Amino acid sequence: MRKVGIIGLGHVGATVAYTLFTHGVVDTMVLIDANEGKAVAEYNDLRDTLARNDYHVNVYMQDWSQLADADIIITSFGKISAVIENGDRFGEFGINSKNAKEIGEKIKATGFKGIIINISNPCDAITTLLQETIGLPHNKIFGTGTFLDTARMQRIVAEELGQDPRNVQGFVLGEHGSSQFSAWSTVSVNGKSVLEIFDDQKLAQMSAQSNKNSFIVARGKGYTSYAIATCAVKLVLAIFSDAHLFAPVSVYLEEFGTYIGYPAIVGKNGIERVVKLKLTDNEYAQLAKSADIIKEHIDQIK
Amino acid sequence: MRKVGIIGLGHVGATVAYTLFTHGVVDTMVLIDANEGKAVAEYNDLRDTLARNDYHVNVYMQDWSQLADADIIITSFGKISAVIENGDRFGEFGINSKNAKEIGEKIKATGFKGIIINISNPCDAITTLLQETIGLPHNKIFGTGTFLDTARMQRIVAEELGQDPRNVQGFVLGEHGSSQFSAWSTVSVNGKSVLEIFDDQKLAQMSAQSNKNSFIVARGKGYTSYAIATCAVKLVLAIFSDAHLFAPVSVYLEEFGTYIGYPAIVGKNGIERVVKLKLTDNEYAQLAKSADIIKEHIDQIK
Amino acid sequence: MRKVGIIGLGHVGATVAYTLFTHGVVDTMVLIDANEGKAVAEYNDLRDTLARNDYHVNVYMQDWSQLADADIIITSFGKISAVIENGDRFGEFGINSKNAKEIGEKIKATGFKGIIINISNPCDAITTLLQETIGLPHNKIFGTGTFLDTARMQRIVAEELGQDPRNVQGFVLGEHGSSQFSAWSTVSVNGKSVLEIFDDQKLAQMSAQSNKNSFIVARGKGYTSYAIATCAVKLVLAIFSDAHLFAPVSVYLEEFGTYIGYPAIVGKNGIERVVKLKLTDNEYAQLAKSADIIKEHIDQIK
Amino acid sequence: MRKVGIIGLGHVGATVAYTLFTHGVVDTMVLIDANEGKAVAEYNDLRDTLARNDYHVNVYMQDWSQLADADIIITSFGKISAVIENGDRFGEFGINSKNAKEIGEKIKATGFKGIIINISNPCDAITTLLQETIGLPHNKIFGTGTFLDTARMQRIVAEELGQDPRNVQGFVLGEHGSSQFSAWSTVSVNGKSVLEIFDDQKLAQMSAQSNKNSFIVARGKGYTSYAIATCAVKLVLAIFSDAHLFAPVSVYLEEFGTYIGYPAIVGKNGIERVVKLKLTDNEYAQLAKSADIIKEHIDQIK
Repeated sequence: MRKVGIIGLGHVGATVAYTLFTHGVVDTMVLIDANEGKAVAEYNDLRDTLARNDYHVNVYMQDWSQLADADIIITSFGKISAVIENGDRFGEFGINSKNAKEIGEKIKATGFKGIIINISNPCDAITTLLQETIGLPHNKIFGTGTFLDTARMQRIVAEELGQDPRNVQGFVLGEHGSSQFSAWSTVSVNGKSVLEIFDDQKLAQMSAQSNKNSFIVARGKGYTSYAIATCAVKLVLAIFSDAHLFAPVSVYLEEFGTYIGYPAIVGKNGIERVVKLKLTDNEYAQLAKSADIIKEHIDQIK
Repeated sequence: MRKVGIIGLGHVGATVAYTLFTHGVVDTMVLIDANEGKAVAEYNDLRDTLARNDYHVNVYMQDWSQLADADIIITSFGKISAVIENGDRFGEFGINSKNAKEIGEKIKATGFKGIIINISNPCDAITTLLQETIGLPHNKIFGTGTFLDTARMQRIVAEELGQDPRNVQGFVLGEHGSSQFSAWSTVSVNGKSVLEIFDDQKLAQMSAQSNKNSFIVARGKGYTSYAIATCAVKLVLAIFSDAHLFAPVSVYLEEFGTYIGYPAIVGKNGIERVVKLKLTDNEYAQLAKSADIIKEHIDQIK
Repeated sequence: MRKVGIIGLGHVGATVAYTLFTHGVVDTMVLIDANEGKAVAEYNDLRDTLARNDYHVNVYMQDWSQLADADIIITSFGKISAVIENGDRFGEFGINSKNAKEIGEKIKATGFKGIIINISNPCDAITTLLQETIGLPHNKIFGTGTFLDTARMQRIVAEELGQDPRNVQGFVLGEHGSSQFSAWSTVSVNGKSVLEIFDDQKLAQMSAQSNKNSFIVARGKGYTSYAIATCAVKLVLAIFSDAHLFAPVSVYLEEFGTYIGYPAIVGKNGIERVVKLKLTDNEYAQLAKSADIIKEHIDQIK
Repeated sequence: MRKVGIIGLGHVGATVAYTLFTHGVVDTMVLIDANEGKAVAEYNDLRDTLARNDYHVNVYMQDWSQLADADIIITSFGKISAVIENGDRFGEFGINSKNAKEIGEKIKATGFKGIIINISNPCDAITTLLQETIGLPHNKIFGTGTFLDTARMQRIVAEELGQDPRNVQGFVLGEHGSSQFSAWSTVSVNGKSVLEIFDDQKLAQMSAQSNKNSFIVARGKGYTSYAIATCAVKLVLAIFSDAHLFAPVSVYLEEFGTYIGYPAIVGKNGIERVVKLKLTDNEYAQLAKSADIIKEHIDQIK
């Protein structure tokens, strides 16, 4: 039976919970938040939904011991206001690096042996801290990383061409933050490379748009929630069903010595393997630079 | 093809939009909010979801003309903070009675001929004002009313007995507000009347709990969203598929001259018919009193 | 993770597999059939579906050892032509009583410790034989029994009244066969007893209709599949999510010393408990008679 | 509201109906078959499912007039035994060319103005005959064509690499029949061309496998149903939601003067446009040859 814990019930964590609940993805869900009132509220709002839901889901709250035999934990703690004020996801790093250590210790103490999907920002750095604190192997903890940014890029490209975003293949790589970039050499629409469709100026503009869009959403509603929650749920499903889904997520790359947004195969063991891309020299340089930025930030905190 | 408009993108309206979107319930969705930034944000968050969603959904925003040929409009405007401060859903009445008239006029101006489901509070009074302003027949506009409170009651009874809330039948009737009540003579669990299971004291305590629970949620997260959104989506599905679903919603009862929470059959024409219950004298008196309270409030505003 | 085995890939078993697969209800599915070519075909047809399915599902075939750690086994072996020729589900008893022993022994040999849902007919007798052969406790093996017949009764009553069958509550009890009966004292529509809506003649006609309808379907398409498959999937979901669903299924009643269609609470332990109904004297007599018929048939085979 | 007609209730048509029904894809469904008993059986089996289904769906049967305002008609008539005996989908051509004319005339007579998805085999030829008979523009009628064969190819490639078939991009082109071929220059896995992964011998073997697999299924169960039904349902959803889905289906190519499996954008107008591929000379020659075969067969019948 499928059991998922969610730590951090801000808009993202709560939306993940609601999505898992209404789609019947899980049998048991454990909700945890530093704010007791928030946890009690989300717990009750979901329990009140049961009579109108197509699925029964067992919900527990604020019980760390319930995580011991969970299959998956999603970490979605944070303080989005710090991101919006700062205009950069590293705005949350001060708070979340502390959170990562405290929460990591608590997860470790439960004896949890499953897979962790980290959403907390800055995603790559926090995934690193969580991995170091908990001591799980690198494959068993990864971040949503640029899975979300890639969805945003797919949408931007699709809108330019009047198409379904699912017709767009390819990746946004690097930090889930300002130094991310669309690796256009990997991107195709209906099998045709975007390099044949758009000129360099257009590509540069579309690349910048992906990260900008997230701030339009964050400023307008105070956070972003739907796209990221849906990304997390896709990853949860891929783990449960051992789907061997190909997705760009925040994975540990030996080559750079850090977690960073890069394609991998996601299955029951978390990251089944990283899939090496043939990038252009320029793209590789951007990726290396993005890795440096992530590592610098982590070094600052240590 | 299925087209739904949502007016008011607070937490409830936005959650309804997200639920319709991720479950593929609609083909086209029109999002409208007085706060342009909020509408832009929700629109973009949903568009960013498209690449990870199992369904394609066309989303429009801030375009009233798109409502002309919509099948269903959901009204979910309001200011929840006014409810929480006041401890009663009539706290929102001042603001929402103005909203109802302004929004009602705008809906009327589009030439909309479909069905309206009102969620805005106080639900029964606002449904009344919307119907009067727009001039649609009573069957084509109704409120979520006690469909939500009934779900809460089903949960409370089910928890007492260690059961699935879907095993509990029966109704909360009256105002979607403080004067609502569980009509226990109508409530059964697995075919057994709750009157045979619980004593009067327990029943009274459980009846009060339903409305209290909503304030626990509202205070803890600042609003309630999941249970109400799921109720609204069930009603949307019942209309599209002409399901003849039996549900307690805010319907116009000639007998009391007001909209009030009472069971009806929901289908493609909205309220296909009201289903008369055999209530006890005491229950009938409570219902009549609840109707009076709704009417008094409406009179005050006129 | 959710793992289900299906033994017997006739139209019913195959449709159960397809439904679990396309709704993402399971992560792993094990398909077994006496006819190797049939198993190979269903396996390949499902594998060919993967690229168009919203969910990834791992499918194994003809591997009994994969059942050892399955959560649920569905038994759907049989030879429907024997039923249609005979006009009675006991037409399959000769063949299926042998099947039940052989298959029961094989299940036992795997060390399976989960829950068995039996669909094979005659359902109550075959469930009995499987339980005796495998030696699982009574709660861990049960049959779909009159869960299907009840759905048929709900439809018949709903059609008479122009309503959604889900508005109809109540039960068909007894043998999943000719001696079944609608326990009208338990049946209500929108909270109103059918005894107040229909006269005795109409009730008698509707009671007979439920079983007749199944033969209209069986004769027209050579088998029945959709309604029974959907019933089985509901029970699978109830077990995985520990839903405490209230449903009439073939359960062991001490009182009669046999498996028979009667309401129970279905959860992670299979039958969590039987729920005693207040039947009329006449209904109780019908139930007792139906139990006798089931036992006579079992005795004949022993 | 969404209305779909299905003409031909063999295993394919019936499975399409069941899938639409259990996933709530349609609000109204019209079932038509030359065999009255079969239509009555499928109608009743679905009606018996309503009480256990998460969605309400209105089902009509044998009423051609109900097709007048349907959004989509799926044609799935045929006689699979003729295909299996013959070892080629043209085995059904004699029977189905008659069917196409008779059924086409009846569809025309209803005044139907929506989109037709043809599944009947030989798919490309029958789509041609239906279009000519009914006189709908080419964009409003198309066949499932190699959408299914492509799914089979995706699976074959994915299995070689231990991946999810959804990670495989690219197309099987040409006739939905023996002259089809995998256009390997279009096929990539996780963005890497299969030409870099497999040698020519392996590619040739995998190309042949796709069509062979369908006969393994057809011989083992007497027909194929699940993969094709799921393909058809994806196309139905793409039309309703105007998804602009990119899919290889049987479309009319001016260049060859015939319907043939080739990628197109599917939306509310059926085929929104054909998407030209850059094929290798060899692939183009194969496509041209496949077109000739389709046209020769059509000529024979005329």
